[in-house]
Amino acid sequence: MKFLISLKTGLTYYTDCLKDYHTKEGFITKEDLLSGQINAKSSKGVDFLIFDCNNYDLSKNIKRGPQIILAKDLGYIASRGGLDKNYTILEAGSGSGAATIFFSKLCKKVISYEINEKHYEITKKNIELLGLDNVDLNYGDLAQNISKINEYDLLFLDMPEPLQIIKSGYLGLRKGSYIVVYLPSISQIVELVSYIISDVNDLYVEEVSEVILRNWKINSRVSRPEHRKETDHTAFLVFIRKG
Amino acid sequence: MKFLISLKTGLTYYTDCLKDYHTKEGFITKEDLLSGQINAKSSKGVDFLIFDCNNYDLSKNIKRGPQIILAKDLGYIASRGGLDKNYTILEAGSGSGAATIFFSKLCKKVISYEINEKHYEITKKNIELLGLDNVDLNYGDLAQNISKINEYDLLFLDMPEPLQIIKSGYLGLRKGSYIVVYLPSISQIVELVSYIISDVNDLYVEEVSEVILRNWKINSRVSRPEHRKETDHTAFLVFIRKG
Amino acid sequence: MKFLISLKTGLTYYTDCLKDYHTKEGFITKEDLLSGQINAKSSKGVDFLIFDCNNYDLSKNIKRGPQIILAKDLGYIASRGGLDKNYTILEAGSGSGAATIFFSKLCKKVISYEINEKHYEITKKNIELLGLDNVDLNYGDLAQNISKINEYDLLFLDMPEPLQIIKSGYLGLRKGSYIVVYLPSISQIVELVSYIISDVNDLYVEEVSEVILRNWKINSRVSRPEHRKETDHTAFLVFIRKG
Amino acid sequence: MKFLISLKTGLTYYTDCLKDYHTKEGFITKEDLLSGQINAKSSKGVDFLIFDCNNYDLSKNIKRGPQIILAKDLGYIASRGGLDKNYTILEAGSGSGAATIFFSKLCKKVISYEINEKHYEITKKNIELLGLDNVDLNYGDLAQNISKINEYDLLFLDMPEPLQIIKSGYLGLRKGSYIVVYLPSISQIVELVSYIISDVNDLYVEEVSEVILRNWKINSRVSRPEHRKETDHTAFLVFIRKG
Repeated sequence: MKFLISLKTGLTYYTDCLKDYHTKEGFITKEDLLSGQINAKSSKGVDFLIFDCNNYDLSKNIKRGPQIILAKDLGYIASRGGLDKNYTILEAGSGSGAATIFFSKLCKKVISYEINEKHYEITKKNIELLGLDNVDLNYGDLAQNISKINEYDLLFLDMPEPLQIIKSGYLGLRKGSYIVVYLPSISQIVELVSYIISDVNDLYVEEVSEVILRNWKINSRVSRPEHRKETDHTAFLVFIRKG
Repeated sequence: MKFLISLKTGLTYYTDCLKDYHTKEGFITKEDLLSGQINAKSSKGVDFLIFDCNNYDLSKNIKRGPQIILAKDLGYIASRGGLDKNYTILEAGSGSGAATIFFSKLCKKVISYEINEKHYEITKKNIELLGLDNVDLNYGDLAQNISKINEYDLLFLDMPEPLQIIKSGYLGLRKGSYIVVYLPSISQIVELVSYIISDVNDLYVEEVSEVILRNWKINSRVSRPEHRKETDHTAFLVFIRKG
Repeated sequence: MKFLISLKTGLTYYTDCLKDYHTKEGFITKEDLLSGQINAKSSKGVDFLIFDCNNYDLSKNIKRGPQIILAKDLGYIASRGGLDKNYTILEAGSGSGAATIFFSKLCKKVISYEINEKHYEITKKNIELLGLDNVDLNYGDLAQNISKINEYDLLFLDMPEPLQIIKSGYLGLRKGSYIVVYLPSISQIVELVSYIISDVNDLYVEEVSEVILRNWKINSRVSRPEHRKETDHTAFLVFIRKG
Repeated sequence: MKFLISLKTGLTYYTDCLKDYHTKEGFITKEDLLSGQINAKSSKGVDFLIFDCNNYDLSKNIKRGPQIILAKDLGYIASRGGLDKNYTILEAGSGSGAATIFFSKLCKKVISYEINEKHYEITKKNIELLGLDNVDLNYGDLAQNISKINEYDLLFLDMPEPLQIIKSGYLGLRKGSYIVVYLPSISQIVELVSYIISDVNDLYVEEVSEVILRNWKINSRVSRPEHRKETDHTAFLVFIRKG
């Protein structure tokens, strides 16, 4: 896979290089794509840069279904959650598989549940597309199954009703480890946190955070934050420690 | 290692449980520490929670020298940089080793250079403390050595003069991969980016970002962002793709 | 003037109520507009709310030319700049007149210069539209004229080259008062501040700030920051005190 | 009143210039204070700048009781609320009087209620200190009195239970004008907004916002946001339009 950038418009493209690649700014020949050169000109004379794809590109180029979790949030789950390449992650729901892929690349194993058939199929396709061999993807309700799952190091919940999972049990979660919950609305956060504080003895709400990303436009004359933000708020993250 | 939280003050403590643990809020007996129970009372009657330490605790509990890189920034390097458990990371400088430890936990290998002897010693102690066996820590100037280093998947630069490294060469960096630069001042960012745009053909500045973390205080009656931020700005992150 | 909100789409409209008001969601009769009732139904059966216009509506409803200064920035100029209803404000350029109108509503007098003829005409029309009688609007270059202007309490500069004004003199600015500069790029800010620090004895750069506004969506079930921000960054504000 | 800045420490001081002014960095003579010169040396040889006080200085130098409302929030109330020098503002509670003073400087009249005797006395002293002659300050509960107050152009509520006021009536508020509510917790915001949406016909919640201020450190070599924020979150602002 190659990643293309138009130096005229800044638009970016991905191609598997099996044939000439056509854009509105002209096409790049298969020969140019495979030449190993970074610079190329399209048939319309537009300058392009050609790069090998990296993991980030692959994760951006997946088939999209429900809203995917962004790098700003995935990263903080990794660092604040103390991720480790020896970890087994349990997650639900898989959504489009963005978190699944991220955990799969970094950790030993990912066990994923998705209750929505369409989303399950999208994640399944994306796992195949990327050739991931350490994901155990399940079509079904994690709440029905969690009591049977043993020995995992982090439980990640991206679903409208995470309390159902917490009430169903999480015995397999290693002591001292985190349940990380991703929830868009502060009202849901308050409900979740209040329940844990008042009704759950072996869980401790350690942090509720929001990760905000600011992109900057930098060149020699003008340097400033981007004027607009396509995405400002995504969700709040809750880090809950198991005793 | 155990992680203690006072339910009275919210203060947190770490202990290796080799003996009773003394705090200003009273001591916790070694027996309580090792009991496996989550709840304990100190000698002064203060309620404590006791948890097993996790990776995040260990990374927070290292010996401190220079300012350490925070989870908000490390996480985004991992996700935006497309980290992979099969990756070899090259970094300089190691500072107190916070990034070194983070990369070590997630990736196959870390090659680290530190030019400041005191910082080198701190990182060395922290690597020993955590028993990391995949870090190749070097006392010296990366700029002098980079041309000899082969096959790495991400180059992370946390140093005042990253341009020295970029000018020294980075032939070992895999094509399509990132140089990630961590710089506190926008003036340094402008200098770096302007140089790459005008003078370097095989590097492309893909993104300049700032990660902002907002912690929330949540309980059933009052939910709001924290009033103060001990740390708001740390640094800008530059993601530079190699062609 | 009336301000209309569609309860179906949330779209807002302004009308002078001289005739029936037509929207894509149907029309509201002149009778309904003038009835004094808050609730009305359009010809297509859409529920509308009808309100009297206030100052904010009038300022939003002006003829647009160049990018207007937003309420988030105007407000901080007023509060941090210590605005007073007895103040005379000197400003350049007037742009579309958004700051001119804001200062006019709050202060005794506004003296405004605009070097771009098209922008001057827009501001002139907007001043007439709102019937402002305390604005002295001038077509010309403030740098050429500032030395002749006496006794003003705040100098507001929204222009690409504020240093030209600062070099031209500001003798009429009351001692202890502020020059407030609005500049989109941090590069311009650094140039301006560096010049004042090194070359100007009677000016002191007291604060460089950025005002960030977050809008929230609130209802009983879902409360969260808005997902997107049409405008995140506008400009930096510099507060410079005259000795 | 004069405003002093130490060029060594950046610390700032206020003095009425009635005698020599003593600081830990040495004293400035009364003669120097009154000389009209911007530069002075303290008895310990520290360089100081001396400025006339402006409105902002005076508002910062008031007697403090409860937490005062900051410029970032006051400013947005002025601009988003459409303030006008002909306006009469009704507010409760006065707190330390920061908003009272701000409105008094900009508007025709301020009617203020404070239910806490200690806070009432602080505001009263601050009004006298600044010689404000357009404030009608009342010791008492606005909820008990609001139905008798006629013809005001903005109602500003900074109190724990703004719903009490809204339930008590606001007939004197001009049509189309705003009730602006300042509340620290999102939980209170949700309660307030939900009540208005479901139970109040002639009020429309037009905007819920948070104003975030970022201060920058700028000099020729290093330009970056300040590392810490003494104040990040203060409160949310709700703009409610009356029909």
